[in-house]
Amino acid sequence: MTTERTGSPSLIDVARAAEVSTATAGRALGGYGQVSERARERVLRAAAELGYRTNSLARSMITGSTHTIGVIVTDVANPFFAMALRGITDVAHPAGFEVLLVNTGRNVEAEQRAVTVMSEKRVDGIIVAAARPSRGRHLKQTIDAGVPVVLLDREVSGVSEADTVTIDNEHAAGEATRHLLELGHRRIGLVTEAGDEFDRLRRPGNRRKGLLPSALRLRGYLRALEDAGLPVEESLVATARYDRESAYEAAGRLLALPEPPSAVLCTDNVLASGAYRAVQDSGLRIPEEISVVGFDDEPWTTLVRPALTVVEQPDYELGLRAGRQLLHRLDGGSGSAKPQSVRLRATLVVRDSTACRR
Amino acid sequence: MTTERTGSPSLIDVARAAEVSTATAGRALGGYGQVSERARERVLRAAAELGYRTNSLARSMITGSTHTIGVIVTDVANPFFAMALRGITDVAHPAGFEVLLVNTGRNVEAEQRAVTVMSEKRVDGIIVAAARPSRGRHLKQTIDAGVPVVLLDREVSGVSEADTVTIDNEHAAGEATRHLLELGHRRIGLVTEAGDEFDRLRRPGNRRKGLLPSALRLRGYLRALEDAGLPVEESLVATARYDRESAYEAAGRLLALPEPPSAVLCTDNVLASGAYRAVQDSGLRIPEEISVVGFDDEPWTTLVRPALTVVEQPDYELGLRAGRQLLHRLDGGSGSAKPQSVRLRATLVVRDSTACRR
Repeated sequence: MTTERTGSPSLIDVARAAEVSTATAGRALGGYGQVSERARERVLRAAAELGYRTNSLARSMITGSTHTIGVIVTDVANPFFAMALRGITDVAHPAGFEVLLVNTGRNVEAEQRAVTVMSEKRVDGIIVAAARPSRGRHLKQTIDAGVPVVLLDREVSGVSEADTVTIDNEHAAGEATRHLLELGHRRIGLVTEAGDEFDRLRRPGNRRKGLLPSALRLRGYLRALEDAGLPVEESLVATARYDRESAYEAAGRLLALPEPPSAVLCTDNVLASGAYRAVQDSGLRIPEEISVVGFDDEPWTTLVRPALTVVEQPDYELGLRAGRQLLHRLDGGSGSAKPQSVRLRATLVVRDSTACRR
Repeated sequence: MTTERTGSPSLIDVARAAEVSTATAGRALGGYGQVSERARERVLRAAAELGYRTNSLARSMITGSTHTIGVIVTDVANPFFAMALRGITDVAHPAGFEVLLVNTGRNVEAEQRAVTVMSEKRVDGIIVAAARPSRGRHLKQTIDAGVPVVLLDREVSGVSEADTVTIDNEHAAGEATRHLLELGHRRIGLVTEAGDEFDRLRRPGNRRKGLLPSALRLRGYLRALEDAGLPVEESLVATARYDRESAYEAAGRLLALPEPPSAVLCTDNVLASGAYRAVQDSGLRIPEEISVVGFDDEPWTTLVRPALTVVEQPDYELGLRAGRQLLHRLDGGSGSAKPQSVRLRATLVVRDSTACRR
C-alpha cells in the first residue's frame, strides 16, 4: 500500500493493494466485464480494508451503468411478491446486477417517491407492480427520462412504452368459477377487494389497462357466470379490504345470507386465509356442505384439512420474465425496441376443498 | 414555466411551475424540513411534469443527508422479516426517510455487495440482519467509513460499534422446552438448522455474538434439558436445511427412531410447516400421540387442526426498535454515542398441539 496517499483511497490504491491492474480493479468493483473470481475477491478485500468507496455517479459516467435495478412492489410480505422477487434476483445477480427493493404498502404516493429516489440513485431500470394501475404518469415520465420500466403484474394506463409481464387474471378466476359450475354449484360467493367495481365490470369491455388483478378476477367470475347463462347476484359478491379480518367478515356475510352460497371463491391468498377461517368457525363441513377455492399455492393450503383447491399463479416465473425483459432492454440496442407484452397462465390445482353440490 | 430553459430543468424551474419558493421546492423534493402537504404535492407534480431529476449527490452535499436508509435481510419471503421491515418503514416514512431493501438469500458475499452498493448510493445508515454473524468485517468497515449500522436479529463478531436489536432466542427456545417438560415429556425432539453446532453449544459459555438465532435456540433447548437434569441425546436433534422438504425429512427421521420423541420443537416457521406436514403424514394424532411446537405466530398456525402452539416473536417491534435506533443515531449529536443493545422477549402461545404425555 502506498504511504503517500492522502485523503480517500483511490482506485489505484486498491489495485496496488490487490496486486492487480487498475482496469481489473475497476471491473471488479464495477461489477462489469470479465474478472476471475480470485482477482475479484482480492480487489473487494483490498477495497474493504482501505475503506474505498466507489463513486457511483463517476462510475456510471464511465460505464454508462450503475448495475443496479430497482424493484417496487405493493406488499413484500405477500408470498406472491416474495417469489416474484426471487425470480427477478435469480436473473439479475448472475448478470452482475444488484437489486434495490421498495415496498409501497399499496400507496401510490409512496410509489411516486420510490421512483424518484431510484432515479436519483441512478438505477439502470425499474420493475414495478403499480399500486394504482389507473395512475401511471410518474412511470411514463420515468421512461421519458430514459429509465426503462417493466410493469409487473399490472398494466398501467397511459404507459404504453413499457414492457409488461402479467398473469391472465381474468382467465384464472374464470377457470376457478367454471370448475365450481361443473361441480353443480349455482350460487357461488366471491370474496374480493374489487366489489366497488361491480357495476363497471358488468358492462361489456375487455380493457385490462388500469385495472388491478382483483378487478380482472372479478370480471373473470362475472363472465363465467354469464357464459353459463346464470344470473349475477350482487349479494354474492362480498367486498373485503386487504386483510384477513376483513375477509373473515366478508365470508361471514356470505354465509349469513338468507340463501347462502354453496361455494366460495377467494381471489387472493390473504383473503383466502381469512375466509377459510370463517368457514371453519361457521361449523359448515368442507367440502360436504360448502366448497372453497383460494388463490396462490402457499404451504398452508396443503396443511389444512381438507387441503385447499387453489389457483396457482406462476409467481416465480413472473419475476424471472420481468427480470429478463429489463436486462434485455438494458443490453444495448433494444432500448427503443417495441414494448413486449408477456401474459402468463395460472393453473387450477384441484384438491379436497371442492366437491359436487349436494 | 420559463421558456428560456435549455437542457435539464432546474430546481428553479420546478419552484416556478409549482408557484412556491425555491427553498420550499428544495425541501419538498429533498424530503426534509416543514412543507405543507399541498405545497409538497404541487412541487412533486411540477417536478414530475418537467422531468426534473434531483442529483442525490448534490443534494446530500447541501443537506448532509440523502434521507434513505438501507435494509439488508436474509430472506424477504420469511414473514418474520416481512413484518420487521414493516416496523422499520413505519418509523422511517413518517420521518421522511425512504427505505431501500436488499435480500441476500443468506449469502454473505451478497451482503458484502449490498453494503457496498448502499454505501455508493449514499444511504444515511444501514439496518442489517447478518447472513453470517461470525463474519462482520465489511460491517465494521462500513461503520468506520461513517455509515451507521444497526444490527437486526443477530449480533455480529467484531462489530462492537453498532447498535443491536435482537430477540432473546435462547430464552425463547428454553421456555418452549420447559413447557414440554412441564407436560411430562422427557424425549423432546428438535428440528433445527444448527445441528452441526451441537458439540460446540453443549460446552459451557454464554457468548451470543457471532451466533445465528438457530444456534442460540439450540443452546436454549440444551440448557433447559440440563437444568431439568435430563440427558441430552444427540439423536433427538435433527438437522434440516432452511426449506420445508428438508424439515419434513428431519422430522421423519425423529419419528422413525427406535424410541421416538413424544414431542417435537421446531425452531423456525419454515421448519415448523415441513415438520407439521411430516407428523400429519405419519398418522400420529396431535396432541394425543405427539406434541408439536412451532416458531412464529403465522396465520396458518391457527388454520390447521389442532392449532399450533408457537413461540411468537415480536417481529414488528424488532423492526420498529431498529428503525428508531438508526434514526436516533442519524438525528445529529448521538453519532458517537455509546452503542445501544436492545433485547426483546418472545412469547409462548399455548394452543392445541401440545398436551400431557400419555
